[in-house]
Amino acid sequence: MYSEKVMDHFRNPRNVGRIENADGVGQVGNPICGDVMTIYLKIEDGIIKDAKFETFGCGAAIATSSIATELIKGKTLQEALKVTNRVVVEALDGLPKNKIHCSVLAEEAIKKAIEDYLQRK
Amino acid sequence: MYSEKVMDHFRNPRNVGRIENADGVGQVGNPICGDVMTIYLKIEDGIIKDAKFETFGCGAAIATSSIATELIKGKTLQEALKVTNRVVVEALDGLPKNKIHCSVLAEEAIKKAIEDYLQRK
Ligand code: FES
Repeated sequence: MYSEKVMDHFRNPRNVGRIENADGVGQVGNPICGDVMTIYLKIEDGIIKDAKFETFGCGAAIATSSIATELIKGKTLQEALKVTNRVVVEALDGLPKNKIHCSVLAEEAIKKAIEDYLQRK
Repeated sequence: MYSEKVMDHFRNPRNVGRIENADGVGQVGNPICGDVMTIYLKIEDGIIKDAKFETFGCGAAIATSSIATELIKGKTLQEALKVTNRVVVEALDGLPKNKIHCSVLAEEAIKKAIEDYLQRK
């Protein structure tokens, strides 16, 4: 049912936790299951130096956030905004259809965190 | 939002995994989020000697399964059937309302695993 990459990022999620004094924070909720996801970004000279996430969500939410935070680290804000849910799901070798609503949390939280950063500036 | 006990069982879940040659196996699905939960029981002389669970579900599903498997270990089948969702949620010092549907998975999977054991006999 789940690809090896999904199970790897579910069992050993990367970048779990929060960043104190983050430059941008994005929090989104999943209307279907009620879960909440928060993404923290450390940004220097327009580059995402660090990214972490916290969630109580399911395996799909954890796996997508894990790989999404990996994908945006080292990228510019413009590049990071191109890391859409489709890109993330492809990087995971796919997800079952009924878990797509969980996987969009990461994309939405990253966008919100970048918006938060731009508003603070 | 979540009690300390919930966070403890979410972060350090007990009894994760499968039991090879289990005496009873119960699998249930969550119609709301699409997650699946499986409970494995080792039963000797009517006593639950071991219990393990596997899920891709959210933090509430993980925390309730963790504490539910702890609660049923060492109990008779009759006693284990009294470990309802209400008992489990109370043992966790409560859960938010919108996560109750995730927490019932453990109770249902335990019942199914016991039924599976009784049918095999
Ligand atoms: S079921 Fe809540 S994030 Fe997947």
